[in-house]
Amino acid sequence: MTTVIIGSGNVASHMAKAFTEAGIKLIQLYGRNEAELKRISKEVGVEYTTEHLKEANFYLICTSDKAITEVSKQIPYEQSLVAHTSGSLCRDVLEGPYRKACFYPLQTFSKDRKLDYSKIPFFIDGGWESDNIILTELAKKISPHVLRINFEQRKQMHLSAVFACNFINHLYAQAEIICKRNDIPFHILLPLIEETADKIKTISPRQAQTGPAVRHDQNIIQFHKDLIKDPNQLNIYTTLTESIIKMYEL
Amino acid sequence: MTTVIIGSGNVASHMAKAFTEAGIKLIQLYGRNEAELKRISKEVGVEYTTEHLKEANFYLICTSDKAITEVSKQIPYEQSLVAHTSGSLCRDVLEGPYRKACFYPLQTFSKDRKLDYSKIPFFIDGGWESDNIILTELAKKISPHVLRINFEQRKQMHLSAVFACNFINHLYAQAEIICKRNDIPFHILLPLIEETADKIKTISPRQAQTGPAVRHDQNIIQFHKDLIKDPNQLNIYTTLTESIIKMYEL
Repeated sequence: MTTVIIGSGNVASHMAKAFTEAGIKLIQLYGRNEAELKRISKEVGVEYTTEHLKEANFYLICTSDKAITEVSKQIPYEQSLVAHTSGSLCRDVLEGPYRKACFYPLQTFSKDRKLDYSKIPFFIDGGWESDNIILTELAKKISPHVLRINFEQRKQMHLSAVFACNFINHLYAQAEIICKRNDIPFHILLPLIEETADKIKTISPRQAQTGPAVRHDQNIIQFHKDLIKDPNQLNIYTTLTESIIKMYEL
Repeated sequence: MTTVIIGSGNVASHMAKAFTEAGIKLIQLYGRNEAELKRISKEVGVEYTTEHLKEANFYLICTSDKAITEVSKQIPYEQSLVAHTSGSLCRDVLEGPYRKACFYPLQTFSKDRKLDYSKIPFFIDGGWESDNIILTELAKKISPHVLRINFEQRKQMHLSAVFACNFINHLYAQAEIICKRNDIPFHILLPLIEETADKIKTISPRQAQTGPAVRHDQNIIQFHKDLIKDPNQLNIYTTLTESIIKMYEL
């Protein structure tokens, strides 16, 4: 089974590494950004091209959601299986004569960040049972956490990941701004951040809630609002505080 | 040096354990909730009372912010040092004839949750240099991370902790709601949550941002908004998405 990875961004770069480390036969990297392709190619020891796509059994499209349809049209091979890595798009955004699937890795991928690929959950959604088997076997070479889910669940999975990762990271960034403004080193917050993430492995987040909002401590809430000078930060504070209060009223 | 811990909630319970484990001489637990005091007392092997406060060198008030002033009036001993554990109150909320201080542990304390106390940063703020030395020595028996900060910084520290912990946990709770509604086990998100918290140990949160908002992917943002049925959750989604977009416009 031969594989080509398409794209040159963070997902493509990490999938190329994950596939190579798992011993999956990667025969080409394909994309538009030559400088990035060259960098990935060097790292994983696989040739790259910006022009001549090789025929392969499996193509994994790791581009941004916007680019998937366009790039999918460039694959002419009827015998191939083609999957994208989007959490929010159906299989049919792929346009071509081949079998279509989704191969969604649930993780946050940053450049230059080493990842333990064996911890990544993979969500498989193929149009045929035989393709689901192929993709499950492939994903299991990388990680034991492989699940088949339908498009409905995958959309919701991606939405929950935006809350559990993208928004979380933005709150870290807001905390960092407060620290910087007040000459407090951000790393002082790391044990608290670690414990907050660790705690929910054994306690449900609903039960794990602490802080002024869940205690209905209006004095501290008002005190914090008075401290915040940035209207955008105040808006976040108010929105999340009210949401916490609401959750525990029910 | 003899210590009494006042309070029977999560902070009191964890401080009693931290002090005992560190070999600090705890002579009494004092509070209103007898059942909870009894439980903590049993765990740490220290006597408790709801009535007769013993004389001690040091009193650590671990009650909720609202209760601090009231309980502080019950300490009549002039020779003692009294500290509260609030991130947002000044020393002078303590009312009594003794020396006043703040001893603020930056962590999220949940009942029945085991903590590595050596990882907790302690923030010391005493009215006298000699008291700062005493409190620093005491805190260093528990953890190497002991800092002296003034009231201004402590307030801001607490505010940043609300973003980096309390709000984060609420977003975990929102993600859990989405998972439950769609028959997805919440634990599938744990590797993503772990990596999100881990990544910022080496990459600044500003740089670590991923997801549709930072990519300005309006299609996916609109798609997610259409998926969300709960107006409160939609409000959180919109507020944080707009804040991310704003941060990377600057």
